[in-house]
Amino acid sequence: MGGEGLSYAAAGVDIEAYERVLERVKPLIAATQGAEVAQGIGPFAGLYELPGGGRLAASADGVGTKIKVAIAAGQHRGIGVDIVNHCVNDIATAGARPLFFLDYFATGKLDPEVFSQLIEGMADACRVAGCALLGGETAEMPGVYALGDYDLAGFIVGLVEERGRPAVAEGDVLLGLASNGLHTNGYSLARKVFEGATLDSTLTNELLATHTSYLDDLKGIRWKAAAHITGGGISGNLPRCLPDGLGARLDTRSWTVPPIFEKIRKRGRLSDDEMWGTFNMGLGMILAVDRKDVPKGAMVVGEVVAQAGPDRVILR
Amino acid sequence: MGGEGLSYAAAGVDIEAYERVLERVKPLIAATQGAEVAQGIGPFAGLYELPGGGRLAASADGVGTKIKVAIAAGQHRGIGVDIVNHCVNDIATAGARPLFFLDYFATGKLDPEVFSQLIEGMADACRVAGCALLGGETAEMPGVYALGDYDLAGFIVGLVEERGRPAVAEGDVLLGLASNGLHTNGYSLARKVFEGATLDSTLTNELLATHTSYLDDLKGIRWKAAAHITGGGISGNLPRCLPDGLGARLDTRSWTVPPIFEKIRKRGRLSDDEMWGTFNMGLGMILAVDRKDVPKGAMVVGEVVAQAGPDRVILR
Repeated sequence: MGGEGLSYAAAGVDIEAYERVLERVKPLIAATQGAEVAQGIGPFAGLYELPGGGRLAASADGVGTKIKVAIAAGQHRGIGVDIVNHCVNDIATAGARPLFFLDYFATGKLDPEVFSQLIEGMADACRVAGCALLGGETAEMPGVYALGDYDLAGFIVGLVEERGRPAVAEGDVLLGLASNGLHTNGYSLARKVFEGATLDSTLTNELLATHTSYLDDLKGIRWKAAAHITGGGISGNLPRCLPDGLGARLDTRSWTVPPIFEKIRKRGRLSDDEMWGTFNMGLGMILAVDRKDVPKGAMVVGEVVAQAGPDRVILR
Repeated sequence: MGGEGLSYAAAGVDIEAYERVLERVKPLIAATQGAEVAQGIGPFAGLYELPGGGRLAASADGVGTKIKVAIAAGQHRGIGVDIVNHCVNDIATAGARPLFFLDYFATGKLDPEVFSQLIEGMADACRVAGCALLGGETAEMPGVYALGDYDLAGFIVGLVEERGRPAVAEGDVLLGLASNGLHTNGYSLARKVFEGATLDSTLTNELLATHTSYLDDLKGIRWKAAAHITGGGISGNLPRCLPDGLGARLDTRSWTVPPIFEKIRKRGRLSDDEMWGTFNMGLGMILAVDRKDVPKGAMVVGEVVAQAGPDRVILR
């Protein structure tokens, strides 16, 4: 993507390579899935029909290299909130309310303070979401994780309470739900951009702002489809909830992009493609809604259109 | 544990420190758990009552530093089998048959060959267990994982099909289910022991032998309680499935300890306490069974006794 700015691949995350591998292993995965799997690897959550009736939604997530920012700042509580809310949002797009959450915490040497902060954050976010923190695994893996380093993964199971939403159609309105920063994506690139820089407390706080939970927002709106804007940005995630043949046109002046994104763009001299293909750019969730169901005061950011070209998302 | 051999803590895993922290954060976790959580952090799985009836069992697990042995050998398929079977066994102790599994795979830079092998192993083990591989998360985290390194976590959900097993009582028989090696525990110590040594193919194969699934064994036996022998060995895990006031007496000559354990003991000059407190020593699962229900040909390894002293497991 040009020699001037930093590319996402250069910062260590090559989404295309991942998608190629995923294509290769799909048949192996499909062989394990019977009729009880409501769809294959769903857009943001896996769906499973229980033998006695009832549909579960499940998702596994990580926090990415935001963890490195937390380690540098010595602030870990927010990472616990991040992982829970990321998971909550993923299954919320399937219309599921969370039932229980489990974590996987791996580190070189267990630091009681770090571990307590993470559990505190996870427990708080679980309580707010009405979700049981059901258990987890803690692993000390010297030789894999450097001293002070760790990784945290989350796993959530929810119950799908509403089925059979109406199909997304041309002319539906796209509502944006504001993000408060990067949430949990794009940190490999952001960290590369700020490499060698001293992070003042303002910048640290902006980078560590916790992943917003949209559980309550989604309860209050009659929506047809929801896209959780994570790795790959709006153009990488919005199409995942749209039927074939439909695209989206967004008016980028219809919402405010938080200042952290402009700081990253400037310092990294990143292109628009880099920015929009990596970060959520101020929208943590986008909903497709029937025009008659748009709530008062909702942030309309665009509309569903017939797909005109190769790009399913048109930003203006 | 003396200055001669290596201690587990020195190899990087301090189980007591972990238990102290866990004690500290228990109230935070409890605050998220309502009546739908059948018990707190269960012995090997979390239990959750579905709103519409039915009980789920869930578990999160890792493979530990066995991954480092796999990386050195360039053999990753077995690690995929390991993580699934570890999870399957954990919920099997709650009488659950697996429904679905999700993985979390994190690495510095995605290696398609490694990733394919892992998925192949996970998909195969899922198919054998009748479990859907429902999805997962793949994270590239340069700066956390060194080039070539990775971590793999697994999350499983199962349905508890049989409730209300009879309580374990004094005089019940303990049956052992043979392990084929270390399964997925004790690798930090084992790797320390073999540090600097050239692993020949025999030793590599012994160290990479895949975690046995006991799902079918458990189906064929009328058991009262089951202990999955993982980190902490028999003395760390068997008491977790015994009621207060009861202990276990095991005759260590009643089963064959696989040769890998003797190799580790010799080279590391490890004490009995180290060996038995770290490794499964040849038993991957121990079942408490009514004397009249002991199947023909079963491996009787001991019996349930009234707890006489501070140690709940007595090895002779």
